Amino acid sequence: MHGIIATWRMALEGVQKADAMLKEGNQAADAIETAIREVEDYPYYKSVGYGGLPNQDGVLQMDAGYMDGGSLSIGAVCAIEDFANPVSIARKLSNGTVNNILVAEGAAAFGKEYGFEQKKMLTDRAKRIYEKKKAELAENDQLRPYDGHDTVGMVCVDDQSHVIAATSTSGLFMKRNGRIGDSPFVGSGFYADEEIGGATATGLGEDIMKGCISYEIVRRMGEGMPVQQACETAVNQLDKKLKKRRGQAGDISVVAMDNKGNWGCATNIDGFSFVVATQQSAPVVWLAHRTEDGHTVFEKAGQQWLDEYMHNHSAAVE
Amino acid sequence: MHGIIATWRMALEGVQKADAMLKEGNQAADAIETAIREVEDYPYYKSVGYGGLPNQDGVLQMDAGYMDGGSLSIGAVCAIEDFANPVSIARKLSNGTVNNILVAEGAAAFGKEYGFEQKKMLTDRAKRIYEKKKAELAENDQLRPYDGHDTVGMVCVDDQSHVIAATSTSGLFMKRNGRIGDSPFVGSGFYADEEIGGATATGLGEDIMKGCISYEIVRRMGEGMPVQQACETAVNQLDKKLKKRRGQAGDISVVAMDNKGNWGCATNIDGFSFVVATQQSAPVVWLAHRTEDGHTVFEKAGQQWLDEYMHNHSAAVE
Repeated sequence: MHGIIATWRMALEGVQKADAMLKEGNQAADAIETAIREVEDYPYYKSVGYGGLPNQDGVLQMDAGYMDGGSLSIGAVCAIEDFANPVSIARKLSNGTVNNILVAEGAAAFGKEYGFEQKKMLTDRAKRIYEKKKAELAENDQLRPYDGHDTVGMVCVDDQSHVIAATSTSGLFMKRNGRIGDSPFVGSGFYADEEIGGATATGLGEDIMKGCISYEIVRRMGEGMPVQQACETAVNQLDKKLKKRRGQAGDISVVAMDNKGNWGCATNIDGFSFVVATQQSAPVVWLAHRTEDGHTVFEKAGQQWLDEYMHNHSAAVE
Repeated sequence: MHGIIATWRMALEGVQKADAMLKEGNQAADAIETAIREVEDYPYYKSVGYGGLPNQDGVLQMDAGYMDGGSLSIGAVCAIEDFANPVSIARKLSNGTVNNILVAEGAAAFGKEYGFEQKKMLTDRAKRIYEKKKAELAENDQLRPYDGHDTVGMVCVDDQSHVIAATSTSGLFMKRNGRIGDSPFVGSGFYADEEIGGATATGLGEDIMKGCISYEIVRRMGEGMPVQQACETAVNQLDKKLKKRRGQAGDISVVAMDNKGNWGCATNIDGFSFVVATQQSAPVVWLAHRTEDGHTVFEKAGQQWLDEYMHNHSAAVE
């Protein structure tokens, strides 16, 4: 049994490629890396890789994480600039026993040493969006500066029951120089244990990491909780705790898959989309929302939604 | 009821100061920051702050983390250079709702913006130890390059039952540029929840973070497990899992305190030292080791051990 689950509609093309690879018997490690690279390479996704939005200084800094659920090996890069595929560097870093997580210049030095592709990642389009936002913020200081934080996170299971989790993001739009969220942090942004399964999160990293939510979901699954229930109860518990202690909770959305290909999703927002492909079912985009009684329900995205999504993402920046 | 627990003998002078502050009714946040600054300032501790050992390029890069168990606010700096007190910057960062974790140049920019003391942190002594190690490694490539990784981590509870956890470290000696371990990662290096208590870890960061161990200990305490049992079972479970999956487990040592001042410690090594002060007992250095049946036992450090410790730490570098 193989399968892959991923956060946000933007993962679709990558999941399609990974699904084909899994069907041909490829390993989860290669399939998930291919899938995330596809998202990193696509110029119209504003929160991951090429085309991602920059920080407050106009610099695009990216984070990525990778975990092998068998050896528990982890790798991550934080605030790396101008490499085409941060997830591939994160995977490479997971091969060592130490020095698995590198930040900023140190991460770039590793990328250069091992010959990873360097690329100017800030597109003209992203620069225009940045300039526009900067002008708006200068005119109206009531605006929220931060509104893009859609990490691509995936969990992939292959026919040998390997479980891999990985993430990639350019983080919060207009973040401070050097800011990192949950995406490169094992346990918060991602977690995998091939005796159980894996989970990954997207949303406001600063709040997600207060509950180590990916670790917590996998832990619940390991106690025998069904995947969907593990996702829902973990998100609800953290959401409730944040509201009690802080008066509010940032966006939290998660997806998970166990080592048999069973999957789940939970969110505390409306309009979270995700993508799933399994041995039985071709890649599908799902739209999730949370019900008043704390469950997350989802339906297949219709053609109209899918069309509007592509239209909005590729629309000209005025 | 107030108290403070901290990893390693090096925390003693800081714990003494914090203990006096707690007895005078000061808050845990101020007491723990004072205690960790004391360790950061002391020139003979080779793995924290001033006097810390550099990375493979001869550059001293430091990490620190801070968590308020009430609001769950977190702050951390990663791979920051030439600031006197990383823990104070981490605490300051915890005040915001976003941009709580900053790396490298971005962390330094924040430190400068808010006027934190800049200081050349690489001492001549640390530089001599680095040069000596480099020469040894050039002569004998069988040597393990990494042997210093003693993070100072503390959990502090005040009379109002505030619980704060914090860490500070210069990380692995001879690490790669930009390497970060568990110390600045919430859930791995530290975790605090004032409805329960707090925990902090030291050892091989790359292995500690595979189990989100500080989060896991607090979670177990929250389920009603006594502090000592929570520490032991969490360390044993991670140690076992690492050995099963990877054939070996890095050093893992933890200390924890609940919001009533009950404390515990567990380790998978011999010779882990830690320091505790509570309302009832003055600051004491304890020496811990793990028994064959998986328990951690500890005894008060004798005068001879304490004398030898200071002698060894301040001995001339040949």
